[in-house]
Parts: sequence; structure tokens; C-alpha cells
Amino acid sequence: MTSGMTPDEFRKHGKELIDWVADYYERVESLPVTPDVEPGAIRAMLPEFAPELPEPFTEVIADLDRVVMPGITHWQSPNWFAYFPGDSSFPAILGELVSAGLAQQGMLWSTSPATTEIESHMMDWLVDLLGLPQAWKTSGPGGGVIQMSASDSTHTALVVARQRAQGTASLDDIVAYGSAQAHSSIEKGARVAGYRHYRPIEVDEQFALRTDLLEAAIADDRAAGMQPAFVCSAVGTTGTTAVDPVRAIGEIARREGLWHHVDAAYAGSAMICPEFRHHQDGLELADSYVFNPHKWMFVNFDASAFYVADRRPLIETLSILPPYLQDAASQSGSVIDYRDWHVPLGRRFRALKLWFTLRSFGAEGIRSKIREHVGAAQALAARLEADERFELVAPTPFALVSFRHVAGDAATDRLADAVNRSGRAYLTASKLPDSSSFIRVSVGQTNTTARHVESLGDLIEEMSDPA
Amino acid sequence: MTSGMTPDEFRKHGKELIDWVADYYERVESLPVTPDVEPGAIRAMLPEFAPELPEPFTEVIADLDRVVMPGITHWQSPNWFAYFPGDSSFPAILGELVSAGLAQQGMLWSTSPATTEIESHMMDWLVDLLGLPQAWKTSGPGGGVIQMSASDSTHTALVVARQRAQGTASLDDIVAYGSAQAHSSIEKGARVAGYRHYRPIEVDEQFALRTDLLEAAIADDRAAGMQPAFVCSAVGTTGTTAVDPVRAIGEIARREGLWHHVDAAYAGSAMICPEFRHHQDGLELADSYVFNPHKWMFVNFDASAFYVADRRPLIETLSILPPYLQDAASQSGSVIDYRDWHVPLGRRFRALKLWFTLRSFGAEGIRSKIREHVGAAQALAARLEADERFELVAPTPFALVSFRHVAGDAATDRLADAVNRSGRAYLTASKLPDSSSFIRVSVGQTNTTARHVESLGDLIEEMSDPA
Repeated sequence: MTSGMTPDEFRKHGKELIDWVADYYERVESLPVTPDVEPGAIRAMLPEFAPELPEPFTEVIADLDRVVMPGITHWQSPNWFAYFPGDSSFPAILGELVSAGLAQQGMLWSTSPATTEIESHMMDWLVDLLGLPQAWKTSGPGGGVIQMSASDSTHTALVVARQRAQGTASLDDIVAYGSAQAHSSIEKGARVAGYRHYRPIEVDEQFALRTDLLEAAIADDRAAGMQPAFVCSAVGTTGTTAVDPVRAIGEIARREGLWHHVDAAYAGSAMICPEFRHHQDGLELADSYVFNPHKWMFVNFDASAFYVADRRPLIETLSILPPYLQDAASQSGSVIDYRDWHVPLGRRFRALKLWFTLRSFGAEGIRSKIREHVGAAQALAARLEADERFELVAPTPFALVSFRHVAGDAATDRLADAVNRSGRAYLTASKLPDSSSFIRVSVGQTNTTARHVESLGDLIEEMSDPA
Repeated sequence: MTSGMTPDEFRKHGKELIDWVADYYERVESLPVTPDVEPGAIRAMLPEFAPELPEPFTEVIADLDRVVMPGITHWQSPNWFAYFPGDSSFPAILGELVSAGLAQQGMLWSTSPATTEIESHMMDWLVDLLGLPQAWKTSGPGGGVIQMSASDSTHTALVVARQRAQGTASLDDIVAYGSAQAHSSIEKGARVAGYRHYRPIEVDEQFALRTDLLEAAIADDRAAGMQPAFVCSAVGTTGTTAVDPVRAIGEIARREGLWHHVDAAYAGSAMICPEFRHHQDGLELADSYVFNPHKWMFVNFDASAFYVADRRPLIETLSILPPYLQDAASQSGSVIDYRDWHVPLGRRFRALKLWFTLRSFGAEGIRSKIREHVGAAQALAARLEADERFELVAPTPFALVSFRHVAGDAATDRLADAVNRSGRAYLTASKLPDSSSFIRVSVGQTNTTARHVESLGDLIEEMSDPA
């Protein structure tokens, strides 16, 4: 048997694995959220060399329980409150299954018209669902594309900004700016894209970028002969979900000729609820924008939605046309070839899982979940604020609660550690700009409900030192 | 219903979709390889706005046949001979299903020990399976990581090379080199990474890079005050699967202090058969290497295997450590955090599909398929060579047949067009360096057998103009 598996075996084992996945979701809430495993323990269960001869697939399935499960961190537990969510849902999993089954490679429109067109359509649906500028639809000058991650999307924006700036400048002199609370992907993307200068701008008491300091930094750089090229606004920073003043930053960027990128990787999904959209006021002044449906829109990683207000500089920067990729449909100009919208050439049919998820939940279903998460987070914030042992360190505009123990860093760190070691919940210990400790509770796993957040509140109370 | 789907619905619809995928593979051979669809026709079948309320999943499944299938280009047809293969297999599809089900996010070891360790282990298995340098195992100074595509892997190598070179040079002066027949991802990656100078080096009569011209270009650049930083060798170019002189290029790179990257995106899989390994002689002189199991090792896209001989400069270039990603296991130094090995932070559990596929086929199963593909391609090459209407334009070291009609470009283009329009097979019309037309027949779809290649030979004969 040299094809790995017959169609009949696929039907049999595929259905077994569908049940295995369903069983997993039915029991994941009862599992300790993080595994108790030492480095190297998983590898130690595997043979040193790949098998020469085929193994029965029943052994492969058995090894999921024997080898894999002891090393799984349960991102899909409703008791997951760490980092930001990395969500899944049943419709999205089935979208991935069909995508893998059709195994399309959508580099050009012609190599998979359905992959390209359903992706364009989903990106346009999201413009309306989130209240993004209409000019970002594919019918306008802009457009959206699915990238792997916000890091990739932001890196792409940095590259296009650099190409625009380097027409008149040395690469050595090009500068990028972002909040000191911006995600590490901004600084990393700038370094990868060849920027030698990244300026983290200090934040105000709400952890939002201070535009006076941004203006001063741009002026200083110009005076020193540098070339300011790129600025990032965050709608929901990773540290505390702070919201930068998007409109004010956009106005500065326009005036100064900088590329303005907006990173709403986490909070973008919330904009499906109109009551949060005031946080994205000024988006029409952005040159590019990213949010991750794979964080909080119940779509499996990877699905990062990247938009540009004008697709021409993006395509001019990223298009290279060798003879083996020339194609009548491409040359007609009537189609989108997404290979020119990012670094990779090949691409999966990732729009399927978005399509399956949006249709299965409906917009109202997604709104309802997000509102439940935000409500539960705000209820937790109120409960902690009312407890003399705790203090909030940042507002909760979305579903992240940032707090600490009033007794200081040691008590805060001890609390985070105790909760995480209990296995009953998982949250993130982090540091404020002044290096003091705080705890991030991120509410947003697909199946997290108010009940789970109340239990977390009980756990925090139970495990805390006295004030 | 706000969770999109209940576990019981998932069991039911998941099993329906397993059957749908199996049915697809049982009939794909009988379908026209490319769809007959006009630009915009798929989108025209979709509603303008996302639904407000949930839709029954039975409608979603029905739309796979109604909306999606008319826009599918059948990369998984055994009559697929275009580009390079973008293969799938049943075990790999099930690996994707489980990966989506567990929905891990393996940025750090601690965020999914199984994702990290099984990936390291699969990369080490491949070192032995393909006869790669032992120093590239994770137990040595090097190591392997799964990236999305060869474009991403090559771009990463270009970035690390640039960082190494820019210590002493202006970014404006850094130069990359590759064969004029190298894949477009080398030039694109160089542009994205900020190289202002990419030098395509002319090739010999077998389309392999001429090292005398490479040496001359490096000397010219040094004389002009430039900083040579990176050179790419191709083991199997995209145009004609030409093999560059890896050892000689590696020796030049060592002498001149260039980063030496080897692109074996397509041909790397063939090295599982020892009889092809002479083509990769000199790999121990490479700084980085990429091959794509998602091309010809029966693993779904995306799975690009990227190796470095020394992981330190890679990690130094790509590591940024904000407080919310600090972690005890990471700080212990005893684990790999793959976020520092590429641009994206998030990462799927892609090693599962490799593990499932290698175990289900066994190394012998993969060798057997690759040998059948190579044998069938070489038989087709011999048949075409014996026909007075055709001439081969390049050797067939692997499974790509490059030929043209002796009557010239018009007859060659007409033949490619006729075969592709027939729907009975799909191949690629391309251009040689002198701009003359030729046809690429790439044999390598998972289920392609000698019989399919013989039928293609019949079709080519039937559709050709006389000599």
C-alpha cells in the first residue's frame, strides 16, 4: 500500500477522528488547562527514526492519546484566560477539513478561482460587519487579504512603507514609530524589514500613545536627517488593551507623509458590535489595518485579515512575474492574484473557515458571544475593584481585566502562579511599563461563559494573600 | 444557538464531510482538471452581506457543490502536470483535521509542548530520511522549523544574511546573488528584505548557475564598494529543475563570507531515495536550506521545512521578548521557542500531518511513489525525444519533462493550449531564457501513476501539429 490510506480507510478513520475531536471538546473543560510535562518528555516517547514500512492508522490514533495529549496546552478550554484567545469553533474546524480535502493552492486566480473569490468576498463582508471604511472593499481602491498572522500583516505594511520612503532616502535612515505598549510584532517586523531605527513612544496614564511625544520624535528625526516612514496605532494593545488615538495619529501621519498602520489584532473582532466602534474612530486615515479573526471571531488560526486603503503600492512592492506564472486571466487585469499581496507564493483556502463560521453563527451569534465575554470581564473587574486586596491597573474597554494585588509584586506573582498551578484556569503574569507586576485575565475563548469567569473570580479570591 | 454548532451536529456534519472529501477523491480523475468559470462568477453566487442569523449547516454543505466546486482547479487530479505538484494525501488531511481540532498555538514551548517537540522530531527524522547534514539536527548547532512556504523560508534566510552583513555596511550596499533561473521568491525575498541589489547570474547550457560569472559579479561589486551578502543555490530550478553546483557555490560563499542558502523546494523530497543525493553534494557548506514536503511528500500545504546550520544568528535576528511572552521554560534555555525562528508569532500544529503521513506511507511508500513518478516522467521524455515533432529542452533529473514542438513557438503554445483546454490534463506553458516557448510536464501528484502519464503522452501526440 503506497498511497498511505485507501478511500474506505479514510472514511473509517476520518469518522473516528471526528468523534475524537467532539469527545475532546466535551471533556476539555474538565482537564487541567496546562500540561504537567517536562521538556523533552514528548520526544522521548517517539522512535529515533521514521518508520521504513507503513504503520496501521489505529496506532497513529492511539498515539494521539498516548503521546500528543500529555503535551497539549488547552487553548480551547473555557477556563483559558491567558495571552489573547486563539479560538476555534466546530464550523471553523470543518472549514479546515474541507480546505485540506480540496488542497487548493490559490497563488493566482486561475489556480483556484473559488479560493480567490470567496476570500475577496469574505474580506468585503467583514468591512460591513465591522464598520470599516467602504473604500477598503475590493470594489474600491483598497482591498483585504488573509495573511497568516498579525505579525505577517504588520511586516508587510512596514515593507510597503519602506519602499515608499526609500525612493528618496537611504535605507539606513528610515524610521518607524509605535507605542511603547505596541505588540512586539511592530518592533520585530521593523527589524525584519530592515529598519535600523524603531522609536517606541511613551504612553499616557491609560497606556495610550502620547501624540505630543510622537510629533516631537518625528521632528527630532527630521532635524537629524532621518526619514520618518511608518507609524502604528494600536486599537487594543497586547499589554492592557489600551486604545491609541487613531484619528490624531492618522492626522500626524498624513501631515508628515508617514504610512499609518492600525493594529487591531485582538480588538478588531469586537467591532462587529457597534457600541465599540468609537474606539476605531479615524480609520479612514489609515493606510493599512490588521485584525485577527483567529483571535476572537471563533475561526481557527491562521486567519489574519489585512486591509490596505490603496492596493497599488502593495502590489507594486510585492509583484514579480516569472514566465511560469504568466497567465491569461492575470494579464487581463480582471482578477486578483493574491500572491502579490504578501510574502508567500502558495496559499491555502483559508476563507472557507471564515465562510462556514460566519454562516453558522450569524452576525448576531458572534455579537452575542462577544458581548457575553465583555460583560463577564467587566463584572470580574468590578468584583476585583470592590475587593480591598486588589486594584485594577487599566480600564477594561474590551474583555481584558488587568489587575494586581495591593501588597505588591510578590503577592501578585504568587497569585498568578497559584492560579496557574491549580490547573483550574490559566492567566498571564505580565509587567507594566514601570516594571511592576500585574495579571492579565483575557476572557474570550469560544465556550467561555459568565459561569467560568465567576469561577475564576472565586479561584482568585481563594488563592490570594490577605491585603 | 450562539456557538455555531453543537457537538452532536459536529459529529453528524463532520462525518458527512469526511464522506464528501472521500467522494471527491474517488471522482476527481474524471473531472476536467481546470474549471470553466469567468472572473466574478463565484462571487456572483454569494449574498452581498453576511447573514445576521445562523444558517443551517446543510445549506453550507450544499453550497460546496453549488458555489465552490465550479471554481476549483483540481490540484489533486492525477492528471495534474502543471507548475510543481501541491500534493495532499488522506493521512495528511486527517493530520490537518486533528490540528484544527486541538487548535494549538505553538509560539512558545509552553504554549504547546507537543506542537514544539513533535515538530523538532519530524525535522530531525527528515534529516536522516533525506541524507541532510547531521549538524542540522536539533541536537547539533543547527535545527529545522516548519514555515509556511519556501518564499517565507528564503526570505528569512535573506534577513539573517542581511543582519550579518549590515554590521559593517550600509543597507544600501548589500547584494544578493542567485541563478537567473532561480525561483522568483529569491528576488522577491531580497526586495522584501530591503536588498537594493539582486544580481541574477547567467546559466550554462543545462540552465545551472555559472560559478565563473558569480565570482566575477562578486569581484565587480566589491570593487564598486558594495557588500556581497547572500547567494542562493537551486537544487531543481522551477523552470527546468536544473541543479546548480552546490559545492562550488558553497566554497565561493565560504571564501567570500556570503550566506549560502540552498533552495530545494521541489527536488528535496526526492532525496529520500539515495540515488538522487549526488545532486545535493556539498550541502554541508550551506548556511540554510529549504524544501517543501507540501510539494512532493504528500503532505498538504503549508509545510515548508527550513533548516539552518547554526541557529544562533537566526534566533538573534528574530527574537524580541516583551513581558507578556516571558516564561520560565523559555528562560531555562532547555526548550525551543519557534516564534524566534520566523516572522509570525502564532503557529499551527503542522507537524501532525507530517507525522501522520510519514507513518502511514512509511519511508518505503514515499520512495516507491517518487520512483514511479520519476520513471514515468523519464519514459515520457524518451517517448517525446523519439518523436520527430518534439525536442527536449532540458534534462529530466527528477520528474519534470521540458520539451517543445520543433515547428517553433506557435506550435508549442498551441499544443499547450489544446491540452489544457481539453480538460483531460493540465500542464504549464513557459519560456526559456532566450524567450522561446516550451512546455513543462511536472509528474508528481500523489495519485498519478505511469498510466496517467502514458495517457498524457497520447494526448500530446493527438493534439500536436505535424513536424
